[in-house]
Amino acid sequence: MTFSHSHLLGIEPLAPPEITTILDLADQYVDLNRRDVKHADALAGLTQINMFFENSTRTQASFELAGKRLGADVMNMAMQASSIKKGETLIDTAMTLNAMHPDLLVVRHPQSGAVDLLSQKVNCAVLNAGDGRHEHPTQALLDALTIRRAKGRLHRLNIAICGDIAHSRVARSNLLLLGKMENRIRLIGPPTLMPSGIRDFGVEVFDDMKQGLQDVDVVMMLRLQRERMDGGFIPSEREYYFRYGLDAEKLAYAKPDAIVMHPGPMNRGVEIDGEIADDINRSVIQEQVEMGVAVRMAAMDLLARNLRARPKAVMA
Amino acid sequence: MTFSHSHLLGIEPLAPPEITTILDLADQYVDLNRRDVKHADALAGLTQINMFFENSTRTQASFELAGKRLGADVMNMAMQASSIKKGETLIDTAMTLNAMHPDLLVVRHPQSGAVDLLSQKVNCAVLNAGDGRHEHPTQALLDALTIRRAKGRLHRLNIAICGDIAHSRVARSNLLLLGKMENRIRLIGPPTLMPSGIRDFGVEVFDDMKQGLQDVDVVMMLRLQRERMDGGFIPSEREYYFRYGLDAEKLAYAKPDAIVMHPGPMNRGVEIDGEIADDINRSVIQEQVEMGVAVRMAAMDLLARNLRARPKAVMA
Amino acid sequence: MTFSHSHLLGIEPLAPPEITTILDLADQYVDLNRRDVKHADALAGLTQINMFFENSTRTQASFELAGKRLGADVMNMAMQASSIKKGETLIDTAMTLNAMHPDLLVVRHPQSGAVDLLSQKVNCAVLNAGDGRHEHPTQALLDALTIRRAKGRLHRLNIAICGDIAHSRVARSNLLLLGKMENRIRLIGPPTLMPSGIRDFGVEVFDDMKQGLQDVDVVMMLRLQRERMDGGFIPSEREYYFRYGLDAEKLAYAKPDAIVMHPGPMNRGVEIDGEIADDINRSVIQEQVEMGVAVRMAAMDLLARNLRARPKAVMA
Repeated sequence: MTFSHSHLLGIEPLAPPEITTILDLADQYVDLNRRDVKHADALAGLTQINMFFENSTRTQASFELAGKRLGADVMNMAMQASSIKKGETLIDTAMTLNAMHPDLLVVRHPQSGAVDLLSQKVNCAVLNAGDGRHEHPTQALLDALTIRRAKGRLHRLNIAICGDIAHSRVARSNLLLLGKMENRIRLIGPPTLMPSGIRDFGVEVFDDMKQGLQDVDVVMMLRLQRERMDGGFIPSEREYYFRYGLDAEKLAYAKPDAIVMHPGPMNRGVEIDGEIADDINRSVIQEQVEMGVAVRMAAMDLLARNLRARPKAVMA
Repeated sequence: MTFSHSHLLGIEPLAPPEITTILDLADQYVDLNRRDVKHADALAGLTQINMFFENSTRTQASFELAGKRLGADVMNMAMQASSIKKGETLIDTAMTLNAMHPDLLVVRHPQSGAVDLLSQKVNCAVLNAGDGRHEHPTQALLDALTIRRAKGRLHRLNIAICGDIAHSRVARSNLLLLGKMENRIRLIGPPTLMPSGIRDFGVEVFDDMKQGLQDVDVVMMLRLQRERMDGGFIPSEREYYFRYGLDAEKLAYAKPDAIVMHPGPMNRGVEIDGEIADDINRSVIQEQVEMGVAVRMAAMDLLARNLRARPKAVMA
Repeated sequence: MTFSHSHLLGIEPLAPPEITTILDLADQYVDLNRRDVKHADALAGLTQINMFFENSTRTQASFELAGKRLGADVMNMAMQASSIKKGETLIDTAMTLNAMHPDLLVVRHPQSGAVDLLSQKVNCAVLNAGDGRHEHPTQALLDALTIRRAKGRLHRLNIAICGDIAHSRVARSNLLLLGKMENRIRLIGPPTLMPSGIRDFGVEVFDDMKQGLQDVDVVMMLRLQRERMDGGFIPSEREYYFRYGLDAEKLAYAKPDAIVMHPGPMNRGVEIDGEIADDINRSVIQEQVEMGVAVRMAAMDLLARNLRARPKAVMA
């Protein structure tokens, strides 16, 4: 078992065998979750706190179920309504929660780097559930598990990531993970939604879907993050769909057994055609959600093991 | 034990022995809830998700406690803040949750039929916690249990349902249940708040409380659903109370041992006189709340048994 | 073991040995909370409901963790969104929850006396989590435990409570508790934020920080409760900090080993200098939060024991 970290802040610090460790354990939790009685005690007696400074029904629910199924005491903090509004700083809030002795702190924050900063101030394991445009590691891990189960391997695949790359922490974490596992990655999207200097990362960049999708094994669509676009070129939804939305015609350029992915929530008819999203022969979008719970169980389980193994911290 | 359904979507599909099965099991859970240690493991290791698209503190709390006392992992989804706002459809939201492998999905939705639709898309047991003007089956079941315990039987009673019949899913579910159990039902209320064609259901309709309450065993008051009245005649609260509010003078026309019910939350001085609501010799309003938790425990227990008994579904 | 109450409504009704009983048990829970597996079963099978009519992330979280770690089924009610808005009274809401058979009801309410009133209507143990300007007993208990652990005793100490005394239930509960335990208390703050007639309580009152802090063992800062100031003199934050904010210069007048406390959330640079708040040789602000969970575990444990010992109440 190879996994030596105290936190899961991003894909960047993970070595390929560590990624494999998480995915292997997650495979076991997929089996557990498909049983009638879906309960284990890996986190029994531990306290998990979910601090979401941005709303995210789906990610928070996934972490909450993951913790509860492993026996943790799970507490959700409605950070919008919190002391932050009374003038308290992020660090004071984190220190306050830390004093309550949580074991696992799951944090989503609109600012890149906020979760890293927070992890330096607390005694518990911190999981990044998405910070600004930076990282969203459990999303990349669940995507990886979905690909590995569908394709039988997680290396030497041609994978296209399509859409709003620039605003997407999902894209960034996936790029890091899939690169580490030695896949060939193509980014497809409007030049205005493509980060500058991205070609240095060893990826191919396309402006045209049909060209970019040629012979890929995996088509990974992204959400159009209108809420993160401040000024700049914003295409109309109709035009966006015409050029970058995944429809049958564009998908025909990919391999015949290519799988279609989307992190959700989907804008049907904007990023993706509804029929393709629902086509159980191509779309693995529901599997991604299923893998999400399992991957989060695995990550929290591994972090809790490391927490127990470390020398005892002395409270100041 | 007779109860063969995969979902509890309404009273309509239930046969009288199935209603009796639920109420008999609920009687046992009433005893459990009155103990110091109020915990059983009928739902241990199962996942219950409460999806309330309409706020309802009382019903959601009742389902939440019911699940927790039976050992389920219970998760509340704040659907107002959810992905629905990001453009996702109801069905996508349901499919997403379904992929997380819940066992029980408790749904309240403002549109009639939405819960039925949703139940066709998921692999788990769905409980309708109120859909538009359609059904609210656990409310009718808790009312039935309250009546059966107070009157010693649930048939051949004279039962008056009073007030805003037209907008009430509570009235509709009660009408169905009490009719199936062979009671004589009277509807009392302003003609403008009476659904057209209601007389075809074998009920008597009254515009006058004193006439309608004559010799009844049960007086079931309804909430004035101002939030569901769009246009049309809306009486002033004062006039409504004068004509249809339950006070001592009107109640005197009922049998001397008639019980008084209200689904809550009450508008004192509008639908009902505060003193009557608090009169422990007449009012069973608190018992209704108590029965609510027990009936929901029974319904979820029975659905979970059927879930376990069915052949395993294969995830797509 | 001395603790004979059915509720924890305030410090006022508690005798000194009862306070000691709570603190002694809390000391044991501090040890539990510092372990990896932080779980006991003192409240197993019991139902705890948190009803917060005022937002309080920190206090609600503390009670929630306290209950979960003791094995209770914990339910949070979002009272802002509740039936209260549909015209129901506070008492009806309380009666409704009571009918669901909770064992412990934790209540915060903006009106002084509301929690006492509510406790008279229900069958379960009620804990006051703050009512208006009246009492906040668990805050005073956690402050007392923090002091006792830092100073080795809880009597014959010189303790200064500084700031907005008039609007503070924290000050009021602390004044009662620290007085009962025979400490010498000084109140320091602007005359406009000092309750009239306060000198009758046997305290010394100061308008000047340097005078008031002379040789004290404990410096207890308060939050500036702007939200509770309606009209009257409101100092500018800058002027307030200059005269009453705790900085190194003022703190130098206290004993060299004096500890610094704040109930949080802090306004850094208004009530207290950030460096002092973070100075682990002086500030016990994080310890206060830690003690909060332990004190609430102890209080709920003791109330649950008394609940079990009482003759059974018969439901009406």
